[in-house]
Amino acid sequence: MRRALVLAATPGVPLHPNPRVGCVLLSPEGEVVGEGFHHGAGTPHAEVEALAAAGERARGATAVVTLEPCNHTGRTGPCSQALLQAGVARVVVAQRDPNPEAQGGLDVLAAAGVETDAGLLADESLALNPAWTFAHVHGRPFVTWKFATTLDGRSAASDGTSRWVSSRAARLDTHLLRGLCDTMLVGTNTVEVDDPHLTVRDADDVLAPVQPLRVVMGERDLDPARRVLDDAAPTVHLRTQDPAKALATLYAEHDRHHVFLEGGPTLAAAYLKAGLVDEVVTYVAPMLLGAGRSSVGKLGIRTIDKALRLELVDATVLGAGEEANVRLVMRPGSRGSQARTSTDERN
Amino acid sequence: MRRALVLAATPGVPLHPNPRVGCVLLSPEGEVVGEGFHHGAGTPHAEVEALAAAGERARGATAVVTLEPCNHTGRTGPCSQALLQAGVARVVVAQRDPNPEAQGGLDVLAAAGVETDAGLLADESLALNPAWTFAHVHGRPFVTWKFATTLDGRSAASDGTSRWVSSRAARLDTHLLRGLCDTMLVGTNTVEVDDPHLTVRDADDVLAPVQPLRVVMGERDLDPARRVLDDAAPTVHLRTQDPAKALATLYAEHDRHHVFLEGGPTLAAAYLKAGLVDEVVTYVAPMLLGAGRSSVGKLGIRTIDKALRLELVDATVLGAGEEANVRLVMRPGSRGSQARTSTDERN
Repeated sequence: MRRALVLAATPGVPLHPNPRVGCVLLSPEGEVVGEGFHHGAGTPHAEVEALAAAGERARGATAVVTLEPCNHTGRTGPCSQALLQAGVARVVVAQRDPNPEAQGGLDVLAAAGVETDAGLLADESLALNPAWTFAHVHGRPFVTWKFATTLDGRSAASDGTSRWVSSRAARLDTHLLRGLCDTMLVGTNTVEVDDPHLTVRDADDVLAPVQPLRVVMGERDLDPARRVLDDAAPTVHLRTQDPAKALATLYAEHDRHHVFLEGGPTLAAAYLKAGLVDEVVTYVAPMLLGAGRSSVGKLGIRTIDKALRLELVDATVLGAGEEANVRLVMRPGSRGSQARTSTDERN
Repeated sequence: MRRALVLAATPGVPLHPNPRVGCVLLSPEGEVVGEGFHHGAGTPHAEVEALAAAGERARGATAVVTLEPCNHTGRTGPCSQALLQAGVARVVVAQRDPNPEAQGGLDVLAAAGVETDAGLLADESLALNPAWTFAHVHGRPFVTWKFATTLDGRSAASDGTSRWVSSRAARLDTHLLRGLCDTMLVGTNTVEVDDPHLTVRDADDVLAPVQPLRVVMGERDLDPARRVLDDAAPTVHLRTQDPAKALATLYAEHDRHHVFLEGGPTLAAAYLKAGLVDEVVTYVAPMLLGAGRSSVGKLGIRTIDKALRLELVDATVLGAGEEANVRLVMRPGSRGSQARTSTDERN
């Protein structure tokens, strides 16, 4: 299974929209007779590649796969059938398929008399495809909310200027993170005010070959001259203000698994209030404004015990000196529910 | 001189109010005939201790001292005279004495025919007493401004509650930093609203044996029942709203060299606007409020190019998980004066 995980994690395999999967076929004597991994949507699945490599030696073999073989016909036929037809005797998988449309392959194999087993190194397989797994389990994409802020919580000065709160190193880092997602999301207001391009570019401002989907949510019409509507990448306008509805649509109709939320304070607050932020990436600039636009809109929190507490996952300094920004990565914590020592600790 | 620096840095020597000083006496043959270091205010100076150790062997010796020998009579007599009387032939110092009241010792020695030299490892000597040096050079204490903030720049929730924005680890760290200063400063409003004790305590809430001076500035009268007025440490009430005036008084009348500014957003803004913050320590809590008191008051900055930019010196994570805080240490940078690439970099 470790070999299958390594195959799945082959560098260069796209993270979206399909999961990364590896497969090893072993003869009854334990000899490797075929290997395969999925190279991305539209190419053969890992099992099919391994079966092709094994040829006749697949008969009676054990298939070790990082993910439960699919049971549906997409751009390729169901892997469960391919394994049966090849005469595989045993199938061992790490992670069960969380995709409601594809799952059940192991049951089909078991019903046909194949010995099956699941769960070996399941966490490692999940870690290969965290957003994909999350999306299928929850029926909505994983949401990473990114914002840049001054030390005193401002995303723009009082005259509205915000270029640049974050440093060049932080902005380049943002492009790397955008490239790990399959969707970038802003509200109509951000499009109106900032006119962002919402593309992934490198340090020389060159567009990456694969671009995430650009999504604008909100009921207002978009000015067709806005940069987000150019042909650098596809763009979807979701005419809703409801975060849950937007995410459900992105999952069900657009096959989206990981949203990079870059909207303004109001949109961010809507997602936070709905409990629909799964990860927070903050670039803190060592800069003070004393006034200006708040980096986060009203959350309906009136008292400190109800604060939205996050768990710090990582803190990294990007750049140096005055150009240094601190990137904090956080996950939602319990909402103000901790027992806190109070009266005996004074200021 | 390196030996003299090591002697000066002997652990346990108080940082305030006197500088840390080390002295080595060498015979004409280069043999060490006496060593000494200053143990704190009211005890013999380093030179006097080294001369006592050397006795008659001081005659014709070279005195290697980290700081220019003092030329004034404080609690002890001038070291320049003691060195002359002992018959020292040569005096080599690292750092010139920046204290206007004590300086000139080297000139007196030179005028009396002693060979003198200054500047060897001067930066290392300065690093032993950075706040002391700063205060005497600038005629005011070095100011460290500390504040705790949520990710979105709030120091309290909208109902005024602020216990606790910072984590326990951050609060303990604050006590360590307080203990490195000789003065803690807040405004009358903070005393009114938060009633802080402004003392240095350990994890068990036990008072440290030596406490910094507690200073409250502002024209309002203080309620005598306030905790800052108890007998745990001396307290001074400066009846002024002028940061420059307050600092000048603290230097000239109270011999203060390092102020730990812990006031609220308005007092902090007054010091920032006056350019009287020399170091910023920020505890960032991974927490969102969406509303509430801003951690910094208005600075009169309207546009992003005029932002008060700081240079990041250190970023450290204190504690873990939801209790993790990020401590950022910064120094003032140039105020919005950098050339910034602009039009070619888009969002």
